[in-house]
Amino acid sequence: MSYTITVTVDADAATTEERVRAALADEGFGILSEIDVQAKLQEKLGEDIGTYRILGACNPPMAHQGLTADADLGALLPCNVVIRANPAGGTDVVAADPEAMLAVAANPALEELACDARERIERALQVASA
Amino acid sequence: MSYTITVTVDADAATTEERVRAALADEGFGILSEIDVQAKLQEKLGEDIGTYRILGACNPPMAHQGLTADADLGALLPCNVVIRANPAGGTDVVAADPEAMLAVAANPALEELACDARERIERALQVASA
Repeated sequence: MSYTITVTVDADAATTEERVRAALADEGFGILSEIDVQAKLQEKLGEDIGTYRILGACNPPMAHQGLTADADLGALLPCNVVIRANPAGGTDVVAADPEAMLAVAANPALEELACDARERIERALQVASA
Repeated sequence: MSYTITVTVDADAATTEERVRAALADEGFGILSEIDVQAKLQEKLGEDIGTYRILGACNPPMAHQGLTADADLGALLPCNVVIRANPAGGTDVVAADPEAMLAVAANPALEELACDARERIERALQVASA
């Protein structure tokens, strides 16, 4: 089973990120964290891996529901969405699949939530890549 | 299988976070993201879940090695460490177990890395709670 949902967008990384943020917002997800992995590895190791950003997406009502069912769930939140240069052109958007992530927690109370989250993330990525 | 490594520290959240950051630094992990879940849910939903912070811990050489083996791995990074008030007193530190997380990726090339990461996180939490 793949642990990611991926689309490739025919646009540069900045434009792609803008579209992804807008589409996620339409599904109720705000971005709570941003990590510029490229810059960090360049700074710490002198290695350039190309554009690679991790956005942490969170839908507050869903996060609250999940944390109520499992107080440890923060260890799996937020839902990461990677913005990565595709060597063949365009930009990959690689989201952690909420169903794969919540399967790790193995809590039946989270199944419906995971399915809902997956559908929202999938729709957002489809919209962003359309 | 649990997906977390947890210790309870006999100290307030701020002191605990300071100790956790120092112990993680000794294992080569910097903190790349911080999410104040309590403040965010208070702001968005008017719900107070008590102290709940998510620190995103990353060991740059290990992250680079992991991303070289699996370019999608950013969807599972950084390693989350939750700082949470324990209702019975003290502060819980709940880290995502790198072995459970990397099992999601199901890539044999990541197994040794996951084991090493787990050992480092476990040691850091032991040191922070000592």
